[in-house]
Amino acid sequence: MMKEIKVKLTGAVLALALSSAAQAQDARSVAPALAKYAQERLFGEVWKRPGLSPRDRSVATLAALIARNQAHELPRYVNLALDNGVKPAEISELITHLAFYSGWANAMAAVSVTKDVFAKRRIGAEQLPAASPKLLPMNEAAQKAEKERETRVGQQFGAAFPGVVQYTTDILFLDLWQRPDLAPRDRSLVTISALIASGQTAQLSGHLNRAMDNGLTQQQASEVLTHLAFYAGWPNIFSAMPVAKDVFEKRPK
Amino acid sequence: MMKEIKVKLTGAVLALALSSAAQAQDARSVAPALAKYAQERLFGEVWKRPGLSPRDRSVATLAALIARNQAHELPRYVNLALDNGVKPAEISELITHLAFYSGWANAMAAVSVTKDVFAKRRIGAEQLPAASPKLLPMNEAAQKAEKERETRVGQQFGAAFPGVVQYTTDILFLDLWQRPDLAPRDRSLVTISALIASGQTAQLSGHLNRAMDNGLTQQQASEVLTHLAFYAGWPNIFSAMPVAKDVFEKRPK
Amino acid sequence: MMKEIKVKLTGAVLALALSSAAQAQDARSVAPALAKYAQERLFGEVWKRPGLSPRDRSVATLAALIARNQAHELPRYVNLALDNGVKPAEISELITHLAFYSGWANAMAAVSVTKDVFAKRRIGAEQLPAASPKLLPMNEAAQKAEKERETRVGQQFGAAFPGVVQYTTDILFLDLWQRPDLAPRDRSLVTISALIASGQTAQLSGHLNRAMDNGLTQQQASEVLTHLAFYAGWPNIFSAMPVAKDVFEKRPK
Repeated sequence: MMKEIKVKLTGAVLALALSSAAQAQDARSVAPALAKYAQERLFGEVWKRPGLSPRDRSVATLAALIARNQAHELPRYVNLALDNGVKPAEISELITHLAFYSGWANAMAAVSVTKDVFAKRRIGAEQLPAASPKLLPMNEAAQKAEKERETRVGQQFGAAFPGVVQYTTDILFLDLWQRPDLAPRDRSLVTISALIASGQTAQLSGHLNRAMDNGLTQQQASEVLTHLAFYAGWPNIFSAMPVAKDVFEKRPK
Repeated sequence: MMKEIKVKLTGAVLALALSSAAQAQDARSVAPALAKYAQERLFGEVWKRPGLSPRDRSVATLAALIARNQAHELPRYVNLALDNGVKPAEISELITHLAFYSGWANAMAAVSVTKDVFAKRRIGAEQLPAASPKLLPMNEAAQKAEKERETRVGQQFGAAFPGVVQYTTDILFLDLWQRPDLAPRDRSLVTISALIASGQTAQLSGHLNRAMDNGLTQQQASEVLTHLAFYAGWPNIFSAMPVAKDVFEKRPK
Repeated sequence: MMKEIKVKLTGAVLALALSSAAQAQDARSVAPALAKYAQERLFGEVWKRPGLSPRDRSVATLAALIARNQAHELPRYVNLALDNGVKPAEISELITHLAFYSGWANAMAAVSVTKDVFAKRRIGAEQLPAASPKLLPMNEAAQKAEKERETRVGQQFGAAFPGVVQYTTDILFLDLWQRPDLAPRDRSLVTISALIASGQTAQLSGHLNRAMDNGLTQQQASEVLTHLAFYAGWPNIFSAMPVAKDVFEKRPK
């Protein structure tokens, strides 16, 4: 049923494959099948599928690993992300973003790993975002949408949970999301990848709509699910598909 | 949009800030924004909000970190908890409690980290709870409530899952919850923090009611959600809020 | 309320208890109650309950730990699994299986730990499965059932998520599940244990039915939940019970 497939690895994916030769050797010494699937399917095929760039696949993968607190695998994927064109400033913002969307300790564990990768690649402070940069401006439509979100959430939860509601506005939507060194479309890609990878489908619908408002295409969103099947496990993807399909169908064409 | 805020750190939070200077340096070398948010918002503001004592914030934070198996960040928060007045015996019981509510391996990982903190602070066996202490007495109302729980769960699941049902009564409600070195109100705080931090909203309603029966006020419960937004991530809090709001609204005033 | 219980440990469970004397000492130095519960209840009682063999308990425990990415506790349970008669080839396939059901990084973390256990026990390549073995044949009924699954999922998700749908058929059901070194019944045991341990109840119903089609009895399934209460935490079990009960009741007697 399975045909032997010769796989040609190129560029950053080849670099990953070579840099992780020791890890592949580990895999073969325990699970030869896993090593084969990694070479033929995951790196030989999935990472090269059209519909989502290697750069975006790296962003989604980092988000999934940090959301799942999997520091063990993170160094190689931070390296791969840099090879795939994700900028150090973007990785920095991705980690900061996930402090709020996946939890503070997840971000701190990612800092601890990324620090060493940055040091080895001589990535210094001059390549990092400012702590307090000039925020992205919000146009009139964005201000109106944010006002509506604030009102809706305020009516629903403001009386019972004033602290959460206030910080959601002040820290998340008027501050974090407007930081300039990670584009809103990429923040959305990070957010939905983290939600899918953590099985948090209850929060997926709103953020997938926001992602598509921010420029993520349906094809890219679909391919994020294909990619994350391997990094978040099939069950999380089968829980995300009905939610994402519903979002796709209800959006104005 | 953001004003620069000068923050004055005091007491245990200052100790945490100083003891974690190396970690803050790490954060700055990867994510200057994260270091800023930590200093200004998380430690400079959230930990000092009224409505929940630093001691209770420490209990909730430890429960969240252990439930999420984040040993990486645990040592500093065990130290902070001790500085904030959580007793060694209470930390010991908190870990034991979470063996049952978050899984055995989570508790064992916490033991492994806490052992070193206890050793450095010369916390010995005389400060730990007995393995088999005299249990808290149950008054008539508590016995009746437990009998009702047992009957309800027994009718629903006793035939299909006799093992689970038996252990739930024998080990959890007639034994673990009655151990004297962590008050029922604090066991409840630990339990709801762990449930929120793991996204286990399906089990939250019953335990939040129990927490409020055990003396946790609505304001404290609300503030637990604000606090855990930072440690469990916003999506877990937005999934918990509708459940908690429903509990608040349905309780007799 | 609690009587002192003298426990007699034998065989593999004794080996575990002895090999983990250091860990028990750690537990006592932080949480004497946890050490007591481990000795009297978990190892003294749960692991010896009838209804599920020690071998199957080891399979379920490994699956739960890998699904929850708890490498910290894994070495002792890999050793216990080997002592309980789980073959190295089965552990190898279990890890490969979970790469797809729990995520790639979970499997790689398990590889990293298991490699050392295998090395110490001189388990070499000759005891591992081939990377590309002759797959198990599918009889006519199995082919028909797979065709039906493929059609159903294709109709629901094929247009929106072609990548996921294709890989689900090609890699999972026509390849991974047919690999010969882990029986379908055991793959099912691994899958449902991972789903329960991760709180992924939305995917449990289908896989529990498949498990029972593959030969897992209702009593064994019930006992898996009792066992995993300790390793996945009570809340995950209370979320799984209604789903499992519904499966039990709807199956033809």
